Amino acid sequence: MKSFFKVKTLDKVMELIPGFSPVDIETVPISRVSSRILAEDIHADDDMPVFRRSTMDGYAVVSGSTFGASDSSPAWLDLKGSIAMGEIPEFDLKPGQAARISTGGMLPKGADSVVMIEHTEMVGDSSVEIYKSVAPLQHVIDRAEDFKKDIKVLEKGVLIRPQEAGLAAAFGLSSLKVFKKPKIAVISTGDEIVPVNERSGIGKIRDINSYTLAGLIRDAGAVPVLYGIVKDDPDALFAVCKKAVKETDMVLLSGGSSVGVRDFTVEVLSSIEDTEILVHGISISPGKPTILGKSGNKAVWGLPGHVSSAMVVFKIVVLPFIKKLKGCSDYSPSGIKIPVKLMRNIASAQGRQDFVRVRFVKKDKELFADPVLGKSGLIRTMVLADGLLEIGENQEGVEKNSIVEIIPMQ
Amino acid sequence: MKSFFKVKTLDKVMELIPGFSPVDIETVPISRVSSRILAEDIHADDDMPVFRRSTMDGYAVVSGSTFGASDSSPAWLDLKGSIAMGEIPEFDLKPGQAARISTGGMLPKGADSVVMIEHTEMVGDSSVEIYKSVAPLQHVIDRAEDFKKDIKVLEKGVLIRPQEAGLAAAFGLSSLKVFKKPKIAVISTGDEIVPVNERSGIGKIRDINSYTLAGLIRDAGAVPVLYGIVKDDPDALFAVCKKAVKETDMVLLSGGSSVGVRDFTVEVLSSIEDTEILVHGISISPGKPTILGKSGNKAVWGLPGHVSSAMVVFKIVVLPFIKKLKGCSDYSPSGIKIPVKLMRNIASAQGRQDFVRVRFVKKDKELFADPVLGKSGLIRTMVLADGLLEIGENQEGVEKNSIVEIIPMQ
Repeated sequence: MKSFFKVKTLDKVMELIPGFSPVDIETVPISRVSSRILAEDIHADDDMPVFRRSTMDGYAVVSGSTFGASDSSPAWLDLKGSIAMGEIPEFDLKPGQAARISTGGMLPKGADSVVMIEHTEMVGDSSVEIYKSVAPLQHVIDRAEDFKKDIKVLEKGVLIRPQEAGLAAAFGLSSLKVFKKPKIAVISTGDEIVPVNERSGIGKIRDINSYTLAGLIRDAGAVPVLYGIVKDDPDALFAVCKKAVKETDMVLLSGGSSVGVRDFTVEVLSSIEDTEILVHGISISPGKPTILGKSGNKAVWGLPGHVSSAMVVFKIVVLPFIKKLKGCSDYSPSGIKIPVKLMRNIASAQGRQDFVRVRFVKKDKELFADPVLGKSGLIRTMVLADGLLEIGENQEGVEKNSIVEIIPMQ
Repeated sequence: MKSFFKVKTLDKVMELIPGFSPVDIETVPISRVSSRILAEDIHADDDMPVFRRSTMDGYAVVSGSTFGASDSSPAWLDLKGSIAMGEIPEFDLKPGQAARISTGGMLPKGADSVVMIEHTEMVGDSSVEIYKSVAPLQHVIDRAEDFKKDIKVLEKGVLIRPQEAGLAAAFGLSSLKVFKKPKIAVISTGDEIVPVNERSGIGKIRDINSYTLAGLIRDAGAVPVLYGIVKDDPDALFAVCKKAVKETDMVLLSGGSSVGVRDFTVEVLSSIEDTEILVHGISISPGKPTILGKSGNKAVWGLPGHVSSAMVVFKIVVLPFIKKLKGCSDYSPSGIKIPVKLMRNIASAQGRQDFVRVRFVKKDKELFADPVLGKSGLIRTMVLADGLLEIGENQEGVEKNSIVEIIPMQ
């Protein structure tokens, strides 16, 4: 049983991630950085905001002048002027004075707060009645209240969401250093696999995995490179693997779920220069026959041939390696898991981690996870699935109505 | 107060969605369809699978021949042959016979199940001992078990995830009819806004919204088209809005949070040919000053100027309209909400729907939502937020430790 000496637990496989390194860096305009991984630290180039601004339409005042003001006993203030948007006020404000201001406007020197327009009334042209008192800094954002100059606002390795792109713009960065999108090779193997435009026919099956994996790779923020179908022929497989390792940053083989074909795949991978087999089997279900090789600095995966198993292995095992490859500082296996109640009992074998397909069901306004029924080999089960429920290797199963955490399947 | 006569509840705004129609259709190769919306129904071109296949490495058998088999009393079967992957077996199987088969292989006629290799042992060259009985259809997927020929497998209007792309491949479709990616215009307005490469300076603020909205639009599966910054000048705003309405499928203006500028925006929009103002104010917070116009068949939005408010309005109000635009049959406001416990009390004003920024915190293995502290005008609050908590207009607040549903902010 030589070929099984490298079967690992999922935890042990995850410990291999730091042995791989991220792709190179490129500079991208901020209109296109969203969903990329930041490759530099970003510091505030100035205070944000750089001036005390109003968050309401109303009157800038010295708050003390409004203390005690009410509907029955309004405060009377002299109108000093009006502040245009984007302009520096040309006057200071003293107690007893007010100035008309719009949302986003700059407070004049001396003013520390804004009274909402709803709580005021103009009296003639030069006075305003205030019906409600304001506290210092009420309805304003103070200078540097958001960020102080020179503080680190974003860290290398974070995912750039729309708000982080906006933040970079706020600090005057019209482009950012980000990690390149990794290129990931997809190779389908197996004598039984035919191209999508051929009739599947008796004994044959169309190439499904190339397109499923292409979608998963794209969703993971990488670029799929399709190498097509390779028959179970050592020379052909060797040639295409070698080419893929050279041209891309990671290689995903899929197919060969039989022991014989897996052994043959391992032999072919081992014969590529500077390549070591790190994992030959993982104690998870589905996904046990997964292979991981390291060719130079690149991960080469042998995924199960069945599309449902390949998808689960991608999500649970491969994705954290892609996160590391694309420069994420947090490459932990999964993001937020969704806590829900389980709709029925699930049994599980001990000694392996099970990943059970579930779909979300809303019942009486509460969210439940319902295990998707049907043999795991059915594609239908993946189409119906919203997420995966992990059952630990020491658990015999999970009982109906217990709270479980679901890994979303996007 | 003429300008406020069209303030609507969020529910009333959502009722306007069916008045807009989806973009055109295009044909895209299946390697690139992931994340698009399907624009045709798909039917099974054949049974799937089209033959009875093995899900294990082992021996194809007639199940009846194994009944009663055990370690102490194995069944003896004659080895009839071996089935190559992708080939049609050249022989039938009778009771008392077995044939070597690999995962994915086609069962010979007569065989109805597979015994796993672990439960067998070869005896000489022509016999095999079976140590465990199998039931009919055990370790096989029967013809048509996944999908029957001619059944509808995917419906127009669904999101194509990787598994749906794979399913289309399985049915021999090398390309699919999908809805085009909508083009969405982004226009920043305001005299106080300066381009990102200029120093923000006193009284001014850099254009943040163009880049935040561009990211949100891209994440929504559409294509942002940036029209830059327009000053608060009616002629300039009219010209750029008219151009944007002509060149794109939806227009997002942002800026103008003061009442004066909002009224001015409404006047400009109303003066565009064939344009009607449908909404002038929504009873939500943040986001009250949101404007929706309909220019021909296109939605034109006036979003609040503050980036945090603009993001919330995009997520809660605009996104369902984009879903309709891009062809989704389900354009309901949000997908799965995440049920978690609230970490502290939140107060809320009655008479409006509040959307409170929260971040997820894991405490004692349980997931909590913690309201993000700080004035809502701070950009920092959006960078820290993982999601939004909706507080209904008739709720006064939510108590600590109650279960709440969080709308994820991606």
